[in-house]
Amino acid sequence: MKISKSAYRKRVEKVQELMEKEGIDAFLVLSLENYRYFTGDVRKQPRMVIPSNDEPFLIVFDTEKEEAEKKTGLEAKTYRSLPDMMKHIVAFTNSLGDNPKIAVEMEFSTPAFLLERFRKMNPHVEVVDAKQIVAPLRKYKDEYELELMKKAGKLADVAMEKVLDVLKPGVAEREVANEVEYYIRKKGAERLAFPMFVNSGERSLWLHGLATDRKIEEGDVVLIDVGPVYEGYCADIARTFVVGKATEEQKRAHSAYVELQERVVEIIEKEKNEISILEIERRNEEFMKSKGFGNFYVKGFLHGIGLNFEETPFPTIFPEDLREVVEERMTLSVGHSVLSIKGVGGFRVEDTIYVGEKIEFLTTFTRELLEV
Amino acid sequence: MKISKSAYRKRVEKVQELMEKEGIDAFLVLSLENYRYFTGDVRKQPRMVIPSNDEPFLIVFDTEKEEAEKKTGLEAKTYRSLPDMMKHIVAFTNSLGDNPKIAVEMEFSTPAFLLERFRKMNPHVEVVDAKQIVAPLRKYKDEYELELMKKAGKLADVAMEKVLDVLKPGVAEREVANEVEYYIRKKGAERLAFPMFVNSGERSLWLHGLATDRKIEEGDVVLIDVGPVYEGYCADIARTFVVGKATEEQKRAHSAYVELQERVVEIIEKEKNEISILEIERRNEEFMKSKGFGNFYVKGFLHGIGLNFEETPFPTIFPEDLREVVEERMTLSVGHSVLSIKGVGGFRVEDTIYVGEKIEFLTTFTRELLEV
Repeated sequence: MKISKSAYRKRVEKVQELMEKEGIDAFLVLSLENYRYFTGDVRKQPRMVIPSNDEPFLIVFDTEKEEAEKKTGLEAKTYRSLPDMMKHIVAFTNSLGDNPKIAVEMEFSTPAFLLERFRKMNPHVEVVDAKQIVAPLRKYKDEYELELMKKAGKLADVAMEKVLDVLKPGVAEREVANEVEYYIRKKGAERLAFPMFVNSGERSLWLHGLATDRKIEEGDVVLIDVGPVYEGYCADIARTFVVGKATEEQKRAHSAYVELQERVVEIIEKEKNEISILEIERRNEEFMKSKGFGNFYVKGFLHGIGLNFEETPFPTIFPEDLREVVEERMTLSVGHSVLSIKGVGGFRVEDTIYVGEKIEFLTTFTRELLEV
Repeated sequence: MKISKSAYRKRVEKVQELMEKEGIDAFLVLSLENYRYFTGDVRKQPRMVIPSNDEPFLIVFDTEKEEAEKKTGLEAKTYRSLPDMMKHIVAFTNSLGDNPKIAVEMEFSTPAFLLERFRKMNPHVEVVDAKQIVAPLRKYKDEYELELMKKAGKLADVAMEKVLDVLKPGVAEREVANEVEYYIRKKGAERLAFPMFVNSGERSLWLHGLATDRKIEEGDVVLIDVGPVYEGYCADIARTFVVGKATEEQKRAHSAYVELQERVVEIIEKEKNEISILEIERRNEEFMKSKGFGNFYVKGFLHGIGLNFEETPFPTIFPEDLREVVEERMTLSVGHSVLSIKGVGGFRVEDTIYVGEKIEFLTTFTRELLEV
């Protein structure tokens, strides 16, 4: 299933409508994800300009022009040096008159220095966050996007099957990560959205994760989080394993987490299009209190997922997103925050879901606490 | 070879001296690389505060405290939510008096929104770029760093050997990347510093790169760039391959590039501690003109490398770095820019060198144009 150039065109038209509404004169696209979303093309360090009421165009390296124009159907201006590229941008912002309002992505794809320098070189420009025009489009997934995310979800399941194969005492966390990544890339993953977490032993308590040269030991709790990407679209799955026999305390914590995840999915199914993430978080805290884990619950249980493995609604980073309502056609990652208890372990069970009329799980690997 | 806590301590003291000199009250460390440089610890989303004349401290997730303090020998304040974490930072900046000057990393590790929000939450703070206090330290490598970079360089050579094994008609670019990455991670690489370039056919003309599902074809020029990381330290190697027989034009372009690289290395050996990157670039342009490739030379032939695969001097992104003098104890990546000629192909030969009294190549794989 490939979408046509005209479908990408429609996305551009939609963002132009939003720009018009917000009084934004142009949108400077610098991220791989938005560039792919609006053109279907994949290119490192993309530079695309979308004026609110004119043809979008690209700025590419000299010898990429022909190929980029063919792939996108857009005109490409060319550069052979950084100052050249800047000149195109400054010439364009100057063409917009006295005080143009330009949207720039400020999330993880845009480093701070770039924004600083853009402002210095374009002092007449009012820079605004592109989130307000991109998030309203990207947070709802169309049929095409959902199909790709389903494939990413299948790869996430395959990754967990592979973990079962390789996770055992004496194997380094890094080896587990390498074997799993190699395998799912062979099976069709474009890449991983983030370096896989293989958080074992004491490190299962971490809020974030990575894989180190630490060797897995008997008795370890091992928290695995992996995000395969299929043609640009991510899935996210996390599971918790115990090497050997799980203790009663570990089982209790894990089953509380699974119960919490199930409740959240139920709430979303019943109250979608009405309930805010803030309210879900409030109920989560209450529930975990009732289970005796009130002191351990960490907020940030769910977030949006799509071309970025974390995207709007993204309340762990953007507190204003707590007010977002969970709506139909969103894809969410549910089970994001760790239940981290000293002396017991860190637990997480995370799945990628599609909010249809019914909730659809895009990741389906067993949610039991697995003893390996 | 492990360095001691006191050696990390010395690095902190050195940066504090520079802060004192620049009138900077504190340095907010948010990047993996600087955090590792100043503590030896590896942690996702690190937050470290270095006051100019007080003890540095960490801000970590609640259940990471004990482990983080043990690993770093530093005191750690804890948080359980984003607002908590912010409170520690605001409380600290408030403790510094009226208009404290705080250094923040602005390179690729700090996304634009983070700086925007930091400024909003700390309106009394004067934010300055941390580059001025970090680059003067990190651009010179000590014995310990050099040893790790040598290991990374050996892994880069191994990667190219593996490319010879797997690069053939019918194999997808992505498969080449997957096989090579898997292999060198098995051989000890922590990760790759950037997704490997396998730029084949028309895409060899690209300025940047990646690996797609395109299948390698007879007659392709294939440009491979790989950056293995060994215990945090990067090496960078690029080589150009021809699938089948190289044409005379391809041989001419490639040998001009190799000659250029040799000249640059010679210039650095003879004129180190005196010559600027700007002057090297000027001579490069002149030389390529004399070879008939004047219209194709792209500036940005060399850059610093270390904990980041691109770091000071980093003139392709920071034009002011063109004025940097190439000095002893720097590690450089030489052969960064592509010689991209439509209808012929894109060519690069990039190596990682250490500027000692003599130049030392940390990557040593053959620089011939390889027909596979």
